Amino acid sequence: MDYRAIALPIGRLLILIAGFMLIPAATDLVAGNPDWIVFLVSALMIACVGALTTAALAGRKFTYRTRETLLFVNAAWLTFTIAGAIPLYASGLDISFADAFFESASGLTTTGSTVLTGLDTLPPGILLWRSLMQWIGGVGIVVVGIWLLPGLRVGGSQLFAIESSENASKPYGRIEPFLARLLILYGGLTLSCTLLYYLCGMTAFQAINHAMTTVATGGYSTSDMSFGQFDSIAVFWVAIIFMCASSVPFLVLIRLVERKQLEDTSQIVYFLAIVTIASFAMFLVLRSAEGDEPLRLFTVSVFHVVSVVTTTGYASVDYLTWGPFFIALFFLLTFVGGCSGSTSGGFKMFRIAVLVNFIHTLLRRMIHPHRVVNTRYSGKPVGSSVIEGVLVFSILYAGTFAVFAAIYSLMGMDLETALSASITALANVGPGVGDIIGPAGNFQSLSDTAKWLLAFQMILGRLEIIAGIVILTPDFWLER
Amino acid sequence: MDYRAIALPIGRLLILIAGFMLIPAATDLVAGNPDWIVFLVSALMIACVGALTTAALAGRKFTYRTRETLLFVNAAWLTFTIAGAIPLYASGLDISFADAFFESASGLTTTGSTVLTGLDTLPPGILLWRSLMQWIGGVGIVVVGIWLLPGLRVGGSQLFAIESSENASKPYGRIEPFLARLLILYGGLTLSCTLLYYLCGMTAFQAINHAMTTVATGGYSTSDMSFGQFDSIAVFWVAIIFMCASSVPFLVLIRLVERKQLEDTSQIVYFLAIVTIASFAMFLVLRSAEGDEPLRLFTVSVFHVVSVVTTTGYASVDYLTWGPFFIALFFLLTFVGGCSGSTSGGFKMFRIAVLVNFIHTLLRRMIHPHRVVNTRYSGKPVGSSVIEGVLVFSILYAGTFAVFAAIYSLMGMDLETALSASITALANVGPGVGDIIGPAGNFQSLSDTAKWLLAFQMILGRLEIIAGIVILTPDFWLER
Repeated sequence: MDYRAIALPIGRLLILIAGFMLIPAATDLVAGNPDWIVFLVSALMIACVGALTTAALAGRKFTYRTRETLLFVNAAWLTFTIAGAIPLYASGLDISFADAFFESASGLTTTGSTVLTGLDTLPPGILLWRSLMQWIGGVGIVVVGIWLLPGLRVGGSQLFAIESSENASKPYGRIEPFLARLLILYGGLTLSCTLLYYLCGMTAFQAINHAMTTVATGGYSTSDMSFGQFDSIAVFWVAIIFMCASSVPFLVLIRLVERKQLEDTSQIVYFLAIVTIASFAMFLVLRSAEGDEPLRLFTVSVFHVVSVVTTTGYASVDYLTWGPFFIALFFLLTFVGGCSGSTSGGFKMFRIAVLVNFIHTLLRRMIHPHRVVNTRYSGKPVGSSVIEGVLVFSILYAGTFAVFAAIYSLMGMDLETALSASITALANVGPGVGDIIGPAGNFQSLSDTAKWLLAFQMILGRLEIIAGIVILTPDFWLER
Repeated sequence: MDYRAIALPIGRLLILIAGFMLIPAATDLVAGNPDWIVFLVSALMIACVGALTTAALAGRKFTYRTRETLLFVNAAWLTFTIAGAIPLYASGLDISFADAFFESASGLTTTGSTVLTGLDTLPPGILLWRSLMQWIGGVGIVVVGIWLLPGLRVGGSQLFAIESSENASKPYGRIEPFLARLLILYGGLTLSCTLLYYLCGMTAFQAINHAMTTVATGGYSTSDMSFGQFDSIAVFWVAIIFMCASSVPFLVLIRLVERKQLEDTSQIVYFLAIVTIASFAMFLVLRSAEGDEPLRLFTVSVFHVVSVVTTTGYASVDYLTWGPFFIALFFLLTFVGGCSGSTSGGFKMFRIAVLVNFIHTLLRRMIHPHRVVNTRYSGKPVGSSVIEGVLVFSILYAGTFAVFAAIYSLMGMDLETALSASITALANVGPGVGDIIGPAGNFQSLSDTAKWLLAFQMILGRLEIIAGIVILTPDFWLER
């Protein structure tokens, strides 16, 4: 393996991330907070490493086979998480490196779990850096989802390969034609969201931060109260609309903007169906228990369901105090996830669609052994390699969830906390259930080991597990 | 569909079950307990229904296609559960029909969860009937597992088809050559177990009852203390050996007795590996915490691990009070299950073996796209239909577990109880974790709805889910 092939693009991306770090540096400088030096020095250090790497390898051409690509994507997430943690560790927050790494991983994977408290009184630079990490992570995830994973045929995602190329030596379709449109769309969504938040009564700073963490379906807030700090129902609906938009496949959004025929609509149908059913169930139970006005209860129901299904993780109240129905509902919704090719995480809607259709096919085949019945997705028959991929992903998803939950339990967490910590990290949601890591809790009190493992699980979730664990096998490292 | 084809064998089996009911009738008569009338009348009623059905259809020949077979196996479990519940409901126990149905379902599926307390003071007839139901259920499950499920190609079990017949109109290999040997083996195991229990200090009544529920991997006991009533370490090792023997594929046991070459040893290797690792882990943690002598702690560790992995469900102490490590360990072990073609339930070892091998194959294929790598089981390549079956079963297993756990949560159970109730019923283990349904608890306090659902889940687990839910689809009932 030629490790320089991996070092070159990582060097370039480090320069980019250093550039973004100048934004919180400038903000803290204007606000008169001494952390501006931390951000500036971190940016210079990281840019220096990136520039040296790039300069040393400039002009060379490398070929990217499957193994180089896999190692690159793993190394990239790890490097960026460390780079993002540096200013948090060096800042006035006075946290351990495990905490800084956890916060950075949670940011870049757009998970949104936090170890920080007293957000309201933190300097603006740190708040902005948290939001920026989610925003950068969000676009990174879309690129991974629409370009890298389909090429690697991970978990059935070859269904979304942007150019159907069966040539194993060049498995990836070209991302360039999409990249510019994707960035414009992502920027456009962020700007519109900022503007609408501002018009609905947020301050400019609140609007910018929440817009970035909304379109990234990340969930970091500028206050310990998350959306509990906002009173206006309009703010909640803006959040709902943009969380949903960012959970739809970005290729569908691009085709929508370009007024082209839409493909791949099955997962949007499943997404809307699940959100609608869960919201109405929550609304009905809530309505029968609380005396509040219906519109507010309806808004609260849709907001929290969308927040968890899109893997954002905002909360405006501690919904777990409403009883076991809500604990069960939100624990289950944590598993679901949005659509593939979006910023959201989790199991993904297309896999639910393929699974439901496939199991129905199997049962029909069992009853009528002589009939030919095909599994379909968005009206088209689905090949067996896609079905196999979806099935394998389901098992690895359940297996990874169970293994990590077991480890957390064995470390002394109670079963509820262990189970929900494992799935909220793997599905990149943010809050779990239970007193400790629920929407009103905080990951601070967990042990450093737990934080490292959770951060690792978040990255594993982002690489759809398979692209992450493959580099842990001996076969990966043995030369043919 | 010709419903008479289903009525005929059920009628015959009802006569058989009525015959077995005469045993507790005789026991209670000898013991001077008035319940002997209940058992006798129930037996006569059931025998009458069976005889009339059989007589009305005698001499006719029916063809059994897939649909008739599926409906038969579902109807058979349901009918026997109702038949088994009748004497419990009519007896001096004074329980609701939901309780009686739950107890009967738990018996016939060899689950072993109970709603009864004060077992030690119950009349011998009822105790014997509970043990007999497990014993009858145990042999029924082996027949279903080695003959019916492979023919239906359920969950990859076609790997164990006793005659390879790809002819869809006659998918089942002949069971007759195996049935006699199976019954002799099962009877022999029960007799040897009874004798050894008796020699180790049990009373004759205790030995007979526990031998029947041991070889059935059922777990019903004659005391609320389960194995906590026995002091002798030898008793525990007899239980361990016979629980293990009954969790091994009976076809392997038959070949072993007949000194033939063994096939299908992979799942035994996995079974022993998992039991060994879990027992040693438990022993080490227990040894560092308790000051008791090592042999007793080692025995306790192996006994409880084997009890849960083989889906028996005996307990001698409330292991959950030892802390979160044990709660997590036993919660996880509840999912595993023994080998296919045995009396044990759960996920089954061969599926773990196929899954582990298949995922390893996939990762290697991802790294080396040009190489041909096959998934293997017991050294032989495994076809894609088996892999597909195993994958689908895994998802339905996880899905059924999750859906029922969600329902239990929504009914107001706490998350821990809901999760472990769902899996202990589906895997036919018996005890769950938590105060209510843990080894020291009892299912009595649950609502009637919960008991019906749990009983239904036990039967679903016994039919490896797929053979159960298929009759709930509209396609099953629509004539072609």
